[in-house]
Amino acid sequence: FSLNLAADCNAVLKALQPIFQEQGMTETVHNWEDHGYLVTYIKKNGSFANLRIHPHGLVMVDLQSYNDHTKGRDEVDQLLNKVEERMKELFHGNIKRVKRLPAILRGGVIDRYWPTADGRLVEYDIDEVVYDEDSPFQNIKILHSKQFGNILILSGDVNLAESDLAYTQAIMGSGKEDYTGKEVLILGGGDGGILYEIVKLKPKMVTMVASNIDQMVIDGCKKHMRKTCGDVLDNLKGECYQVLIEDCIPVLKRYAKEGRMFDYVINDLTAVPISTSPEEDSTWEFLRLILDLSMKVLKQDGKYFTQ
Amino acid sequence: FSLNLAADCNAVLKALQPIFQEQGMTETVHNWEDHGYLVTYIKKNGSFANLRIHPHGLVMVDLQSYNDHTKGRDEVDQLLNKVEERMKELFHGNIKRVKRLPAILRGGVIDRYWPTADGRLVEYDIDEVVYDEDSPFQNIKILHSKQFGNILILSGDVNLAESDLAYTQAIMGSGKEDYTGKEVLILGGGDGGILYEIVKLKPKMVTMVASNIDQMVIDGCKKHMRKTCGDVLDNLKGECYQVLIEDCIPVLKRYAKEGRMFDYVINDLTAVPISTSPEEDSTWEFLRLILDLSMKVLKQDGKYFTQ
Repeated sequence: FSLNLAADCNAVLKALQPIFQEQGMTETVHNWEDHGYLVTYIKKNGSFANLRIHPHGLVMVDLQSYNDHTKGRDEVDQLLNKVEERMKELFHGNIKRVKRLPAILRGGVIDRYWPTADGRLVEYDIDEVVYDEDSPFQNIKILHSKQFGNILILSGDVNLAESDLAYTQAIMGSGKEDYTGKEVLILGGGDGGILYEIVKLKPKMVTMVASNIDQMVIDGCKKHMRKTCGDVLDNLKGECYQVLIEDCIPVLKRYAKEGRMFDYVINDLTAVPISTSPEEDSTWEFLRLILDLSMKVLKQDGKYFTQ
Repeated sequence: FSLNLAADCNAVLKALQPIFQEQGMTETVHNWEDHGYLVTYIKKNGSFANLRIHPHGLVMVDLQSYNDHTKGRDEVDQLLNKVEERMKELFHGNIKRVKRLPAILRGGVIDRYWPTADGRLVEYDIDEVVYDEDSPFQNIKILHSKQFGNILILSGDVNLAESDLAYTQAIMGSGKEDYTGKEVLILGGGDGGILYEIVKLKPKMVTMVASNIDQMVIDGCKKHMRKTCGDVLDNLKGECYQVLIEDCIPVLKRYAKEGRMFDYVINDLTAVPISTSPEEDSTWEFLRLILDLSMKVLKQDGKYFTQ
C-alpha cells in the first residue's frame, strides 16, 4: 500500500492486528521509532507474515507458507482481501496504490524464474524439466513452457525457445535474402535453428562451425528442440551441409589462407564468449577478431549477419 | 537453497549467524520444533532479514530494505555471497539448487510488475508513466518500456505494446489477405493498430466500432501509441475509414437489418467483455451473440478473424 500521507504506525498495527489474530497467529512487534514497525505474525503450521509499516506512508504485507502451491491460495486471498478492506477503511481515499503480486514459488522441483539479461524477474509457465546437464563449460537446461515450447537455457541465461522462429528469420535477413545455390558459413548456432531454416532454401553448401563447448548443447537440442532444428543435427553431414565441431578461429584462419569464400557469414556466437580463463579486455578483442576473419572469407558482394 | 538431505536447523542457524551479526543485526529466533526455524535479523537502519529453515532441506533468506534501488545492491550481493559460501562449506556437495532472485521493488513511483493473464510475475523495464487515467469503466495506463516502447495496460491487464505489430498482423491474416478495395468491419480495436495497418492497404471502406467504454483508450492511444495507430485516430473519419463510438451490438443489428455486408469482420474486442454489471453466464452469451451477428453481415466468401 502506497499512501498519500504519513502512516500512523500504531493505528495501522491496531487496525490489522485482529485479522492476523483471527488466523491464530502470534505477534511480535519491533519498533524502530524513526523507521516504523516490523510486525511478525507466526502461525502454528509454519506459515508466517511480515507487516512492515514505514511512517512516510508505505505498508507492506508479505506472507510465506510451505505447501502445495495450489492449496491455500483462497485462504491467502481472503486474508489479503480483509487487509485491503481494513486499510481502505482506515485511509479512505488516501491510498495511492494497492498492489498484490503473484506468489513466488521456491523449493519446488521446477524452477519457473529465469531473469532477463538485464536482471528483471520473469516467471515462465514451465511444466517440465526436459534436459538438465552440466558440461565442463556450462549448465545446459531445456525446460518446457506451455507458451513457448521447449526453451534452451545456458547457465541460467535464456537462449532460444522453440517458438523463436522470428529470431532465426531475423538473423537470416528477414526473408529478404535468396540462399539458393549459395555458400553459407554459420558461426555458433548450436541449437541448429539457422542451419535447419537455410537448408530448406536449397543452398549450395552450408558450413556450421560449433566449438566443442557446444557439443552437449547440440546433443540436447537434437533430442529436445526439434521444432527448431528438425533433423539437421542427427548427422553432422548432409547433402548440402556439414557441421564442424571445432573452435571457429582456427577454421576461419584456415579458410582465409586457402582462399575459401562465402556468400553469407552468419555469426550466431553467444554475445559474450564463454571462457574458462578469467575475462580481460578479451571480449572486444574476440569480437573484433571474429569480424576481421569473417571479412576475409566473405565474397565482395557477400553479407555478414549477426545479432 | 534446496538440499539433498534434511537440514539440522540449529547447525544452519549457527553457521549463518555470524554473517548477520557482523552487519550489526539483532536476532530473534522462533522454533516451531516440527516446522523448523524462523530467524529475524533486524538492523538499526530499518532493514531486516528473514532466515527460514525447513528441516526437510529448504533454506530461504529474504532481505528487505528501504532505499534508492541502485544503492545497497553491492552490500546485499556481498552478504548473499557470504551466505552462499557458508552454506556450501556446511553442506558440501549436498546443495541441489541455489537460486538468487532479483530484488522486487515496491513503493516506487513506477510499478514494474504486470502479471500475465495466467498469473505469472513479469517485471518490465518501465522507465516512465506516460498516461494514467481512470475512466468510469477502467483504469487506463500507458507505460514506456525500453524494450517494447509504450505499453497499453487496462485495469492491470497488459493489452498491446508499440512493438506488437505481430499481433496486429496476425489478426489481419498474417499478410496473406488482400484488403485492396474491400469492405472491412473492425469490432473494438481501440488502440487503432488494425485500422492503421488496413488503411495502408487501400481498402474501399473500413468501419471500426469502438464502444464509448473505449473513448479514453482512444484518447490515450492517439497521443501516446502513435507507432501503433499513426494518425488514424486523430479524426474519426478519413477517406476510406470511419470510427463509430457506439456499442457494437446495436450497430451489428442495424447493419444486419439493412443488409450491409462486409468482406472482412475482425473481432478485436477484449476476450472477456468489460461489464459494469455482475458477471453471469453472460460472457459466453455475449461472445455467441457477437459471432452470430458477425456472420449475418459477412459476405458468403467473407472472412472472420479474431484472437
